[in-house]
Amino acid sequence: MAEQKSYHMSPEDFRRHGREVIDWIADYHENVERYPVLSRVRPGEIADSLDTEVPARGEAFDQILRDATERILPGLTHWQSPGFHAYFPSNASGPAILGELLAAGLGVQGMLWSTSPACTEVEMRVLDMLADLLGLPDAYRSSGSGGGVIQDSASSAVLCALVAARERDSRLLTNREGCDGTQVAYCSGEAHSSLEKAMGVAGLGRAKLRKIAVDGCFALDPASLAAEVEADRARGLRPIFACATLGTTSSNALDPLAAVGRICRDEGLWLHVDAAMSGAAALCPEYRYLHDGVEHADSYCFNPHKWMFTNFDCSCLWVADRRALTGALSILPEYLVNEATEAGQVVDYRDWQVPLGRRFRALKLWFVLRYYGVEGLRHHIRRHIELAGRLAGWIEADPHFELAAPAPLNLVCFRHRGSDRLNERILKEINGTGEVFLTHTRLDGRFCMRLSVGQARTEAEHVERAWQLIAQAAERLRKSAT
Amino acid sequence: MAEQKSYHMSPEDFRRHGREVIDWIADYHENVERYPVLSRVRPGEIADSLDTEVPARGEAFDQILRDATERILPGLTHWQSPGFHAYFPSNASGPAILGELLAAGLGVQGMLWSTSPACTEVEMRVLDMLADLLGLPDAYRSSGSGGGVIQDSASSAVLCALVAARERDSRLLTNREGCDGTQVAYCSGEAHSSLEKAMGVAGLGRAKLRKIAVDGCFALDPASLAAEVEADRARGLRPIFACATLGTTSSNALDPLAAVGRICRDEGLWLHVDAAMSGAAALCPEYRYLHDGVEHADSYCFNPHKWMFTNFDCSCLWVADRRALTGALSILPEYLVNEATEAGQVVDYRDWQVPLGRRFRALKLWFVLRYYGVEGLRHHIRRHIELAGRLAGWIEADPHFELAAPAPLNLVCFRHRGSDRLNERILKEINGTGEVFLTHTRLDGRFCMRLSVGQARTEAEHVERAWQLIAQAAERLRKSAT
Repeated sequence: MAEQKSYHMSPEDFRRHGREVIDWIADYHENVERYPVLSRVRPGEIADSLDTEVPARGEAFDQILRDATERILPGLTHWQSPGFHAYFPSNASGPAILGELLAAGLGVQGMLWSTSPACTEVEMRVLDMLADLLGLPDAYRSSGSGGGVIQDSASSAVLCALVAARERDSRLLTNREGCDGTQVAYCSGEAHSSLEKAMGVAGLGRAKLRKIAVDGCFALDPASLAAEVEADRARGLRPIFACATLGTTSSNALDPLAAVGRICRDEGLWLHVDAAMSGAAALCPEYRYLHDGVEHADSYCFNPHKWMFTNFDCSCLWVADRRALTGALSILPEYLVNEATEAGQVVDYRDWQVPLGRRFRALKLWFVLRYYGVEGLRHHIRRHIELAGRLAGWIEADPHFELAAPAPLNLVCFRHRGSDRLNERILKEINGTGEVFLTHTRLDGRFCMRLSVGQARTEAEHVERAWQLIAQAAERLRKSAT
Repeated sequence: MAEQKSYHMSPEDFRRHGREVIDWIADYHENVERYPVLSRVRPGEIADSLDTEVPARGEAFDQILRDATERILPGLTHWQSPGFHAYFPSNASGPAILGELLAAGLGVQGMLWSTSPACTEVEMRVLDMLADLLGLPDAYRSSGSGGGVIQDSASSAVLCALVAARERDSRLLTNREGCDGTQVAYCSGEAHSSLEKAMGVAGLGRAKLRKIAVDGCFALDPASLAAEVEADRARGLRPIFACATLGTTSSNALDPLAAVGRICRDEGLWLHVDAAMSGAAALCPEYRYLHDGVEHADSYCFNPHKWMFTNFDCSCLWVADRRALTGALSILPEYLVNEATEAGQVVDYRDWQVPLGRRFRALKLWFVLRYYGVEGLRHHIRRHIELAGRLAGWIEADPHFELAAPAPLNLVCFRHRGSDRLNERILKEINGTGEVFLTHTRLDGRFCMRLSVGQARTEAEHVERAWQLIAQAAERLRKSAT
């Protein structure tokens, strides 16, 4: 076989096209407000615009990038728009994008310490620093009994925590022989759906997740938790795990961590804290109260990829006892045996997660922490909370509207007084303007709008404009009804 | 609160620093052969070089990038080096890096179709095109009963397949009530450790994974599989799942898919095919024989992030019946309810995976397929296989060495005749040169070296040099022993 030409992109072309993509992204962020936040395409429209076969011969990169502009952009919902107030923030930033780029360029695998030591050690160091900044317990440090690890999402983090709890309870018997249907777990009825999903995936059974009653603020009621645990024990079942949510997805409710923690300690339950979005607030001393009681937690999850300017995916999971996690997930086949692992001197992150492979995600988190500094991070978090507070004030002052739940941080749930139907129509109308995108939830059975403030460049003018659109739509719909 | 300055990176700075990072990566790839492939740092060395606190005030990006050069580079094992022959390839490429960059810049979430329609539709289209190129069954197309989805890794893919199989068998009872310890699964003793890990995570129990005997080529023995299934039924257990590996991690053994497939069909087992690395070979018609029998498979996994020039993570999972997968993993809380989902017109990929969130990974795969074209992909795959074949020839021709297993594709397992100890010393010595990095395995209980050819820029000179280093080390060690 003769030596042939290469089809790889040359370094010169990479430099040239790389600059084009960088400029493309800068242009996109500068112009993102021009696009309708919520995509307007109909199902199948984007797919229909794409070729159906891999081309026989490679295409020019310029053509590919042009297609991204012409065929992909119209099919996006613009999460980085300052008018994006839906779901939860998933904010990106310059340093995070460049950290992700650098990780992609390096293309190293961090499954074992030895497969790229820096990939593991930067992650350990960054998660230690972040634990300091959030005021998390000493045990969560790599110098303590626990440590932190980056997962792709809070869903994967809670699955790992649940499996660790399951194995701590069964002394690894479940891992070996399988579940027996006797282990039960607890969360509030407002907790994230990922818990129920994890219960199914982990073989524990979704019906074995007890959804505990909430109080008037949609936070878990500790007395109900204690009663359910007792009732399950009376049934001969084994309570193993509880999740306290700091900032529920639906309404940002804050479960009473200290009270839940005392019950978990007394009952020997693994306590997992889901602070996926709202953990970011604890970067500021004045919101550190969120963490009162966190010393009882066996695991804690916070997603910098939600509200800390770090591109998805970057979900941080800390555990108080790393052996509980690695004991549940570790497997060492011969082809991964190496000196450092055998000597027990290193952390091998493959034993802290479901996947084996992992990329260098710590790089973008390290970039973000250093580029913003404590001051910059706190500034933007405070600003978002302040803007949400202003909106809550306007809603409270408007006789047509009401808050549907307390708004302690950056999420405001509200409704127009009257029917669900009217609220649905308001939401549809404002989303139809293309200027904003809000989503909804149900609280006490009633349809409510949710407005999340957390995209990197959301400023006062955007929240003001959102409220103006809401109030105007409401007025129009009230008039047309009369 | 007064309006304050922003701490975000300005668009101008993003353009400037973006170019610096692009150039950094181009320089890195041009110079990667200068670094020792396997990192030489000792445990803790990188962590000790890093600051232990997040700075109070943000730092200049130039300083951060300088630290990446000075403090991170020495701690890397260079997976993109053409001298990297360890584990499996995890090859990157220009178009993939730029696709990842674009996805990071867009920062969209693809958890639901509606959260960014293009993110879902490009993925569907790209996986359909790739299924065509690999000659996979019609059922795997989105136009058929199944479809494809990008997972982070083959480990997560097999977990999803296993959970789908578990639920198909139990008619969703397991999902609801938990496992009962009666379901069993099968793979060869040479299959990847992720199967055992998934059995534990899914609550089925690692001991319920039967490791079937292999033949002289380390491929699964179908008669033994049939006998084990029968024995388990006689014990009152429920066989639910089997995995056939096309290209085992240890030695690249090819399980007899057609024979395994017939057994699975007759016995009603879910057949999963793990072609994580070697599926890439099926891009070439002359290696399409790998897929003989794939029409029996319920699911099939191939990782473009191994040997198809697409940065980690990008693991493609296809299923023949998408309802089996989504039925096992779907949960729809109120805050995710939307018109398109309710109308049943769209694919919501959150139901095809464990995590809820997902980034726009299809973009890099689309870039790679279009940039290389069929011709470019086949060229490099063939080239790697040809180079591995040359090495196998040299080993066979050398009286001191022997092949430890057949080398059908791009992985060569071999050993120096004689003791394990001698082989371990050869491996340690050549890895110590810094020019190459190989890993080992055990076959028939004996220590063997593995040389994988699959990094993007590995060429004849690199494989020749690796063999020269091996032969020279062996000669030196033979001499010093006499």
